[in-house]
Amino acid sequence: MDQQKIDVLLSIKVWDPKPWVEGLSQSTYINQVHLWPTEADLSRVSGLFVWKPLDEGVVQKLPNLKWVSSLGAGVDHLVNDQQIPSDIPVTRIVDPFLTRDMTNYCIMGVLMHQRSMQAHWQNQQKAIWNRLSYSSLKVGVLGLGELGGHCASTLAQLGFEVLGYSRTPKQLPGVQCFNGGELNQFLAPLDVLINLLPVTPHTVDILNLDLFEQIKEGAFLINVARGNHLVENDLLLALDSGRLSGALLDVFREEPLPSGHPFWKHPKIRITPHVASVTAPQSAMQLVLENTKRLIEGRDLLHKVNREAGY
Amino acid sequence: MDQQKIDVLLSIKVWDPKPWVEGLSQSTYINQVHLWPTEADLSRVSGLFVWKPLDEGVVQKLPNLKWVSSLGAGVDHLVNDQQIPSDIPVTRIVDPFLTRDMTNYCIMGVLMHQRSMQAHWQNQQKAIWNRLSYSSLKVGVLGLGELGGHCASTLAQLGFEVLGYSRTPKQLPGVQCFNGGELNQFLAPLDVLINLLPVTPHTVDILNLDLFEQIKEGAFLINVARGNHLVENDLLLALDSGRLSGALLDVFREEPLPSGHPFWKHPKIRITPHVASVTAPQSAMQLVLENTKRLIEGRDLLHKVNREAGY
Ligand SMILES: NC(=O)c1ccc[n+]([C@@H]2O[C@H](COP(=O)([O-])OP(=O)(O)OC[C@H]3O[C@@H](n4cnc5c(N)ncnc54)[C@H](OP(=O)(O)O)[C@@H]3O)[C@@H](O)[C@H]2O)c1
Ligand SMILES: NC(=O)c1ccc[n+]([C@@H]2O[C@H](COP(=O)([O-])OP(=O)(O)OC[C@H]3O[C@@H](n4cnc5c(N)ncnc54)[C@H](OP(=O)(O)O)[C@@H]3O)[C@@H](O)[C@H]2O)c1
Repeated sequence: MDQQKIDVLLSIKVWDPKPWVEGLSQSTYINQVHLWPTEADLSRVSGLFVWKPLDEGVVQKLPNLKWVSSLGAGVDHLVNDQQIPSDIPVTRIVDPFLTRDMTNYCIMGVLMHQRSMQAHWQNQQKAIWNRLSYSSLKVGVLGLGELGGHCASTLAQLGFEVLGYSRTPKQLPGVQCFNGGELNQFLAPLDVLINLLPVTPHTVDILNLDLFEQIKEGAFLINVARGNHLVENDLLLALDSGRLSGALLDVFREEPLPSGHPFWKHPKIRITPHVASVTAPQSAMQLVLENTKRLIEGRDLLHKVNREAGY
Repeated sequence: MDQQKIDVLLSIKVWDPKPWVEGLSQSTYINQVHLWPTEADLSRVSGLFVWKPLDEGVVQKLPNLKWVSSLGAGVDHLVNDQQIPSDIPVTRIVDPFLTRDMTNYCIMGVLMHQRSMQAHWQNQQKAIWNRLSYSSLKVGVLGLGELGGHCASTLAQLGFEVLGYSRTPKQLPGVQCFNGGELNQFLAPLDVLINLLPVTPHTVDILNLDLFEQIKEGAFLINVARGNHLVENDLLLALDSGRLSGALLDVFREEPLPSGHPFWKHPKIRITPHVASVTAPQSAMQLVLENTKRLIEGRDLLHKVNREAGY
């Protein structure tokens, strides 16, 4: 008996779609891979794979749509998209390499701050030998999901005192966990705050002056989740007043960060261009194909998003 | 019965001796703490604690000397000191915090290289958004002792492919171990080389052009052991030819690094001023006091150096 196969539509922006088209085309579960935009007949497409955003009107062309997958960890570009009927499951990428790379980026950010690497670099340019001391740090991780949870427990293994905050109660080895109404308790002692929340109506703009004022004076911010978690002007105010001592930012409200943006030249801000953790197509495709198989076999899809919660 | 106590002599340079004098003075095992230089009668001193170097003629004033301890992990300043009779045991500091801090520094160095943080920093200054890619790295650790062993296995836990090299055969979880005549095999595939060897007659000048030419073209060097492991001019040649792509250096033949030294301004060299891992007196003192107790009780001292092997 012939194996059942499905047609899929890829809609990929910012990234190179080539490895995805090539990889998926080789799958025995996939009949045809379409790449948006296309004039082809899409009526047989049942899987839509998106990074990001999805153009208006795409879903309308897919009368047989059964499943939408984000090709990254985030789904903020999909959960509020009115095009996608509410009964269509939306999945996302959870990938061990994506998780590892995010954790390692955060470790690097914490260590560069702890060890004053920016100051050492400035001293080097002036040939100044100054044995700046370092001390142990309390690190807080906002969001204890796939990424935040791994990041928090790995930092604990490296000897940091780690606190974490999530929506629902959590238990993680070596991590002091807070949730719900305990945000202030979580924030108060922190030397470093790492944001790994998803974007939802409750978390948009969460990194604002009110929050910064609850952290220990002189704390350092690492934002690796999404640009719209951060109220940009509030960060500038907090840095200028010394409330925060610095920030490492990988994500921005507008990407690429506009060339005239004040963040570029700010002496207390370090910028990386949304590279904290980049989905590796080869690795993420395993999950997409496993879900394709599950769709065909009528089984539950992996890493389904709770569309009501928004992540 | 009164507890037996000993007199000790501290000889500390570069560091502040105060926390050591204060901490040791409080011990019930110590009768008197002398600080070098001193005119006091030292004939009752049986423990000599040194960081570094030890002045000529000190040992001559200690007719009752029974034990010398380095106050750091390294003992290169003591093992070849002709003042110290060959039958006097020499110990050194092995401390979990010292080990942790060294590992974390090395992790930071590897990650900053992997993630092109120097290039991102330069791009930031020009407001350039360039999503430089990163790839997985093979990291080699020269020396698999207290520091190198911990560093190697922690890097393996973070997902790096790790190779290690030591004098005698070793087994470490997640680390491909080489020894003796296998130096070339160890070096050939490396993207990053971390030096954590002790200084001995066999390891002085080991980081030279001949060694650099055995590593993969474009590899990155992290030297956190000692300045005299590195032939400075050979590093400059290897960087200028592209044989090595860069170096992170924490230790130097002359410290402080002289202000006119070519390393300061070299675009491919990052400098920190011997701060990769700093002995924390509070923590290291535990070991010194444990050994003091052992000396009094006539038991074997911990972390004795093999003076013949030189480490
Ligand atoms: N910069 C980059 O390169 C990059 C790469 C990948 C991902 N990301 C970002 O990282 C985010 C996190 O990914 P993930 O895979 O870890 O997501 P996840 O597994 O869905 O975890 C989300 C975590 O946030 C918590 N949370 C959600 N809403 C909250 C609220 N209102 N208050 C407190 N905690 C809340 C959740 O709490 P519960 O555990 O109680 O549900 C959970 O612990 C993604 O959404 C994406 O934006 C960035
Ligand atoms: N930059 C800083 O802030 C800082 C701080 C602390 C220490 N350090 C440096 O780090 C060094 C290492 O400390 P440690 O506590 O890890 O020393 P350790 O425990 O004595 O380990 C030394 C390692 O090097 C290996 N080794 C020695 N001679 C060798 C040779 N000729 N060829 C190959 N391998 C050789 C040993 O092999 P075997 O296992 O076979 O014996 C052992 O694995 C210290 O000596 C010090 O110089 C620097």
